[in-house]
Amino acid sequence: MRLPVLVIGNKNYSSWSLRPWLLLSHFGVAFEEVRLLLDTPQFAVEVGRHSPTGKVPALHDGDVHVWDSLAICEYANERWLDGQGWPRERAARAVARAAAAEMHSGFTALRTQLPMNSRRTPDAYRWDAAAQRDIDRIQALWRALREAHGGDGEFLFGGFGIVDAMYAPVAVRFDGYGVEVDDTTRRYMQALFALPAMQAWRAAAALEPESVLATDALRKPLPA
Amino acid sequence: MRLPVLVIGNKNYSSWSLRPWLLLSHFGVAFEEVRLLLDTPQFAVEVGRHSPTGKVPALHDGDVHVWDSLAICEYANERWLDGQGWPRERAARAVARAAAAEMHSGFTALRTQLPMNSRRTPDAYRWDAAAQRDIDRIQALWRALREAHGGDGEFLFGGFGIVDAMYAPVAVRFDGYGVEVDDTTRRYMQALFALPAMQAWRAAAALEPESVLATDALRKPLPA
Ligand SMILES: N[C@@H](CCC(=O)N[C@@H](CS)C(=O)NCC(=O)O)C(=O)O
Ligand SMILES: N[C@@H](CCC(=O)N[C@@H](CS)C(=O)NCC(=O)O)C(=O)O
Repeated sequence: MRLPVLVIGNKNYSSWSLRPWLLLSHFGVAFEEVRLLLDTPQFAVEVGRHSPTGKVPALHDGDVHVWDSLAICEYANERWLDGQGWPRERAARAVARAAAAEMHSGFTALRTQLPMNSRRTPDAYRWDAAAQRDIDRIQALWRALREAHGGDGEFLFGGFGIVDAMYAPVAVRFDGYGVEVDDTTRRYMQALFALPAMQAWRAAAALEPESVLATDALRKPLPA
Repeated sequence: MRLPVLVIGNKNYSSWSLRPWLLLSHFGVAFEEVRLLLDTPQFAVEVGRHSPTGKVPALHDGDVHVWDSLAICEYANERWLDGQGWPRERAARAVARAAAAEMHSGFTALRTQLPMNSRRTPDAYRWDAAAQRDIDRIQALWRALREAHGGDGEFLFGGFGIVDAMYAPVAVRFDGYGVEVDDTTRRYMQALFALPAMQAWRAAAALEPESVLATDALRKPLPA
């Protein structure tokens, strides 16, 4: 049996890649990884072999090609996780899917102004009111989900699942840009960062030599 | 038993609302409809009672609240459709989910420059190269899906399902803006427009008296 292949971008920058990578890794699914370097001429050339949209992540599992993060998570859930990726109860699963879909289609200001940069450390760089509204909405959502569904677990619906994988890059952003967070968010971020798979991703990101200049340029204003 | 309630926007304009509405209606799921008028002061007031994101569609089914089009379709698939919303075969289902996810998260230029306007008829209004790339990608995707999965059916994976509901508003756009289409697209659009549920939606849209001015303003340049 050939292993499934997950095509990803740089670990330091590729938030969409982190999502299915974390899910597969956390649940111990064996896969091969192909890393393409974002923002390079080779990316444009190579990504076409893997994805019809020219974007990562993409998954190849034998003849099956899946080219979107959320669709890869749904496929992994059926193929390898025996449904453990979503809450077992139908009503909770619907809410988890709505939260995952909100991330998948939304938070444009946050995504644009606070792009994932795992190596980043906080400084005086700041964002506009639209990005702050995204930040506030995400924290309100996390509080509501933890309260209604978190139970004794550390994640949004108790145990780690797809919805947590979808929001994991947001935790990396909050950390790196020094976003002010509430207690629920702080504890949730700690739980995410304590996952061995998350630590492995971030450790690899720290060692990557490549830079995406536009993302690294988002720093505090230079002293006058 | 209380009927489920689907909260939607104006039928003429609300592309995201059309998706779950069409799915539920096509499969004969009984539901109540609450229509909120986009782009009015009441919308902002009323939508907060239904959706934490301030957007439509939203579904209430007893205690279950689902606030995103794709998540509503997934829930409906489990709750009422016995899985008929997606292809039965796992590999085909993964591809259908990737295509649905591509629509859910992408095609920004098409969505901005050719917003749904069911009453619209073609004129000399035109769009930029980015929107044309979206149009070309969608037609390439439809050709590839019809060829690999369409079989004897008229829809992307044979019979009508969630992926067709996700792309139905694109057919309305192609029609109303006079987009030049290939034969596969023309036939697929005919199949979508022949669905009784689609005809009911568009007939209702035609009778709505309200206007979203910014959308209606997208017309051919006035004669000089
Ligand atoms: N909706 C897609 C988004 C994928 C995406 O935007 N990926 C970025 C990297 S994180 C990308 O490939 N960008 C390269 C490009 O657009 O050239 C998904 O969920 O997988
Ligand atoms: N990702 C959401 C998008 C929903 C959306 O953008 N809905 C529009 C109408 S089609 C809306 O409610 N706009 C009102 C607003 O943003 O004020 C979904 O798939 O349901």
